[in-house]
Amino acid sequence: MTNEQWLSVFKRIGRKMRAGITEFLGREGGTIALGKGAGGDRTFPVDKWAEDIIISELEQAHRQGESFTLISEEAGVRRFGDGRNIVLVDPIDGSNNAKNGVPFFATAIALLNGDKLSDLTVGYVINLAVEDEFWAVRGQGAYKNGSPIRTPATDEITIVAYEASNPGKDIPRIFPLIDQAKRTRCFGSTALDLAYLASGAISVFATATASRTFDYAAGMLILKEANGVITDLEGTSLDHITAGLDRTVPLLASKNDATHVKALDLLSVRPVKK
Amino acid sequence: MTNEQWLSVFKRIGRKMRAGITEFLGREGGTIALGKGAGGDRTFPVDKWAEDIIISELEQAHRQGESFTLISEEAGVRRFGDGRNIVLVDPIDGSNNAKNGVPFFATAIALLNGDKLSDLTVGYVINLAVEDEFWAVRGQGAYKNGSPIRTPATDEITIVAYEASNPGKDIPRIFPLIDQAKRTRCFGSTALDLAYLASGAISVFATATASRTFDYAAGMLILKEANGVITDLEGTSLDHITAGLDRTVPLLASKNDATHVKALDLLSVRPVKK
Repeated sequence: MTNEQWLSVFKRIGRKMRAGITEFLGREGGTIALGKGAGGDRTFPVDKWAEDIIISELEQAHRQGESFTLISEEAGVRRFGDGRNIVLVDPIDGSNNAKNGVPFFATAIALLNGDKLSDLTVGYVINLAVEDEFWAVRGQGAYKNGSPIRTPATDEITIVAYEASNPGKDIPRIFPLIDQAKRTRCFGSTALDLAYLASGAISVFATATASRTFDYAAGMLILKEANGVITDLEGTSLDHITAGLDRTVPLLASKNDATHVKALDLLSVRPVKK
Repeated sequence: MTNEQWLSVFKRIGRKMRAGITEFLGREGGTIALGKGAGGDRTFPVDKWAEDIIISELEQAHRQGESFTLISEEAGVRRFGDGRNIVLVDPIDGSNNAKNGVPFFATAIALLNGDKLSDLTVGYVINLAVEDEFWAVRGQGAYKNGSPIRTPATDEITIVAYEASNPGKDIPRIFPLIDQAKRTRCFGSTALDLAYLASGAISVFATATASRTFDYAAGMLILKEANGVITDLEGTSLDHITAGLDRTVPLLASKNDATHVKALDLLSVRPVKK
């Protein structure tokens, strides 16, 4: 399949998820059983349901002759033949929001034509609580709901978004950034932080806790195709990172190069390599 | 009108807003003109449009014989006859999100049968990006989308939400709370923070910057009717505060009494008065 055909598969998955999610919303008063996914996060039934949709669509692609490996937060690693393509999935990014009835969570899907993040070729993120769909194919720009997106050109740090698995430790680490911000945001979904950063709503995004590739790979490509920058907190490229289930590195993402240099400077480290 | 009839007016406003908001979403790529509202916030055309809907519905209530004073972020103070009722409105709480294309903003409307927050009788908050409606009539409990809501009974501090007008100064002030949290959230809408706190999604909400009554009055009643607690950061009741456009006090809100005592303790102050 071409990258565009893969994107169509991802969109079909996203739209099925969006159509079906309504029954899971508004359950916040009820008890929701908890499991534990391959990525270490506790997973909720909605994750399982989501992954069933994803696997069913991917099985169809496989029956049509595609070979690839699925790496997903819920199911772990699953081979569909011997191909070198990797489909990296977070069925529900923002499980805590979904569980608690907060309408801010996403499905994130990335295609890599190899096992490194430098092999990213398609990224797709859908905000399941609303209609917002973000996608990018490498070299072809980024889109939100069908319209091209590009980050602002200024280096002003207005809104700093972050995620923190350990707020008491993580927030002090990125405080120099927060201290410069007019506003902060902590939405609870790394995939959406990167997607809304790509569409110009956020100046800088940071997470001091090491993130998993399925959380950020799709958003990473969308952001880069929208002229944004993403490295680890020391400014090192993420290209060498292997797609998988493990925690990798803390992230720093900015709307553009100049802002990224400023952000790295605030964090008192120099860019090693961009 | 009875409180229930007022609630119907507020719901009619909310649903008109929700129905019309679609055209304002997805504008994040365009330039949006800025104004300045009576409450000091810069206001966007969507605020003005929202307030037109609100005023038109309130004029209808006035023609049917109701007398009241409207206090709104955009229009300021406007008398509809000589009644002692006050309708306190934030047309778009979360303007920055709305402006930037982030689907997390609300309309908040409160009815008071006097000029103090102790006179709160109806609270209504609608998340305009999705279908979530929250409301409360004093003494009759709180509701989300028609179902009763009540905060959890445990005193565990899991998710701490906050808003900060000056992150570098405000976050250190409330850091003892953040330090205890498993996760933080900063969504950018005080009305929604309080509403989702009332529905059990948040343990404690704090804002070190003094808030305006139109930002929190509606959510305050919803939270209290859901068994939540709200005071200033020192534990002092908000009942004596006069409804108006000025900044009043920083807020501390918790899912229940025990959690509130714990939160006040963490902030190293003792409850003066609950």
